[in-house]
Amino acid sequence: MTIDFAEILLARQRISASVLRTPQREARALSARLGVPVQLKCEHHQTTGSFKLRGATNAVLSLTRAQRDAGVVAASTGNHGRALAHAAAAAGTKAVICMSRLVPDNKVQAIEALGAEIRIVGNSQDDAQVEVDRLASEAGMTPVPPFDHAAVIAGQGTLGLEMLEDAPHTTTVLVPLSGGGLLAGVALALRTLKPAIRIIGVTMENGAAMQASLAAGAPVMVEEVPTLADSLGGGIGLANQYTFSMVRDLVDEVVLVSEVEIAQAMRAAYFEEGEVLEGAAAVGIAALDAGKVTLAGPAVVLLSGKNIDMKLHRRIMAGENPDLAAEARHD
Amino acid sequence: MTIDFAEILLARQRISASVLRTPQREARALSARLGVPVQLKCEHHQTTGSFKLRGATNAVLSLTRAQRDAGVVAASTGNHGRALAHAAAAAGTKAVICMSRLVPDNKVQAIEALGAEIRIVGNSQDDAQVEVDRLASEAGMTPVPPFDHAAVIAGQGTLGLEMLEDAPHTTTVLVPLSGGGLLAGVALALRTLKPAIRIIGVTMENGAAMQASLAAGAPVMVEEVPTLADSLGGGIGLANQYTFSMVRDLVDEVVLVSEVEIAQAMRAAYFEEGEVLEGAAAVGIAALDAGKVTLAGPAVVLLSGKNIDMKLHRRIMAGENPDLAAEARHD
Repeated sequence: MTIDFAEILLARQRISASVLRTPQREARALSARLGVPVQLKCEHHQTTGSFKLRGATNAVLSLTRAQRDAGVVAASTGNHGRALAHAAAAAGTKAVICMSRLVPDNKVQAIEALGAEIRIVGNSQDDAQVEVDRLASEAGMTPVPPFDHAAVIAGQGTLGLEMLEDAPHTTTVLVPLSGGGLLAGVALALRTLKPAIRIIGVTMENGAAMQASLAAGAPVMVEEVPTLADSLGGGIGLANQYTFSMVRDLVDEVVLVSEVEIAQAMRAAYFEEGEVLEGAAAVGIAALDAGKVTLAGPAVVLLSGKNIDMKLHRRIMAGENPDLAAEARHD
Repeated sequence: MTIDFAEILLARQRISASVLRTPQREARALSARLGVPVQLKCEHHQTTGSFKLRGATNAVLSLTRAQRDAGVVAASTGNHGRALAHAAAAAGTKAVICMSRLVPDNKVQAIEALGAEIRIVGNSQDDAQVEVDRLASEAGMTPVPPFDHAAVIAGQGTLGLEMLEDAPHTTTVLVPLSGGGLLAGVALALRTLKPAIRIIGVTMENGAAMQASLAAGAPVMVEEVPTLADSLGGGIGLANQYTFSMVRDLVDEVVLVSEVEIAQAMRAAYFEEGEVLEGAAAVGIAALDAGKVTLAGPAVVLLSGKNIDMKLHRRIMAGENPDLAAEARHD
């Protein structure tokens, strides 16, 4: 299944008073290294620190009055939960956020502080999802899934409108890829407005669920592995309705980056641009600096979020390349 | 001399398409420590990385056609030069930026990259100013001084409108203070809209020119000393026209913070909020965390810029408290 481009325009109308139109600007050092102009879409400066606010806000503002009264519920690796908590609070709606115990503490606390009720369940997104389904059937709450949902995809797609409006000559975009809600929405917007544009999804080598599913021709499970790009963790859902087919049909390539490449890209963002990025947000820069994508013209790299444990960020800025999978094995 | 509040409203009309309306949000950890809600006005996310774009853009967009054709010139410790270069380029106008050799390399390069012509002159703002005056008289260029100028003050004052609109219940604001253009503009806006509000200027102990001038009852010279808050360096001008009297008449208190307090505040912004601040932008947090200002109600802290040598930033995040004055003596 896919969604209509018009849903993205409607989403923009619905959310524009509630989300920031984030700045997009040239990355001078990166452009100089690559020999083509590269712009950074600074969505990590979005309220709640990630793009997730767009989809969550569009979903909440699409509810009926009765649905708003019963509240919303979601499973989340963090940024979606934070965004949904904020969007629900802004709309005066109750939110319950279910998450696995792999989620970093700083993300849990940030969501609690936004007034949402937290339920920690199991070791994976899938375990948390069982609790979401229970609250939906027993308490009548509306599930707002983190990516495979029409209103969420349409909300994230508003980023595609902004990226092209601010850089109409763009020939390539690089977008972080996890469950594919962001990439599907952005790709629909861009493919509609500029059919020949090259759309690249970037994800991490450690647990790339969409990449494995595309290779298999259908959604498959992958093992969740600790990664610097923890926001990109989790499966795409075996009953995936939208994002698998949209990514398959709208996206030109999927590129994988290593943990060391992500760390290096986080350092580039900090030392060259003074920007704090979470690992998931640095994968576009990582793909370019690792030479995994060669640009023939102007490009835009989407920086998707900045929610990271800052002690971990400092370690990386000090030159470390943490192997979080190995650290987890030693715990 | 002062300016009319209406000039700030006119400035907002003039610049609103050219500058970002930057976000303002609660600083959770800081609010919890102080027991009152504290919001951060994130003007360090402004285009060019500092508030200076507002005043520079208002000045450039106030020029006559003939003045635009001849170009603009300024002396600058960095952020004003960067902002004027950007504002002039956006308006298709030539800009020449004169600066002392105390200005950090990263700031010089950033201004050159924006297309401005750079002249490095002498050891102080005052030396650079001589070159500005020569270009004005010999080449007919229009000087745009960094702070003591009606259009610049009015442009910075637009921040006061936004701060109060986003937090109408604010009872105290903390604003970085150097030459006083930012503080004078913000104070005029706030004193007009909310006469009882408490307005605090914060500056560094190392070379606080406005503070010394207020104490003397008239503008005085101070020695320029290297400081983490290098954007706050420089005198206020012995022939000061606007900012001395406006700060004297509109501001409740001026508070001084030490280098160690500034470094600690930069760390708080990074570890608690994931924000990169230059030293000058951290003085408000420094004043609060050092207990130099006691809040009785909701407050807004203006974060003014993020343009810092990131190697220096990393040293501070690693726990160092650099004594830049001592380091300069050993050079």
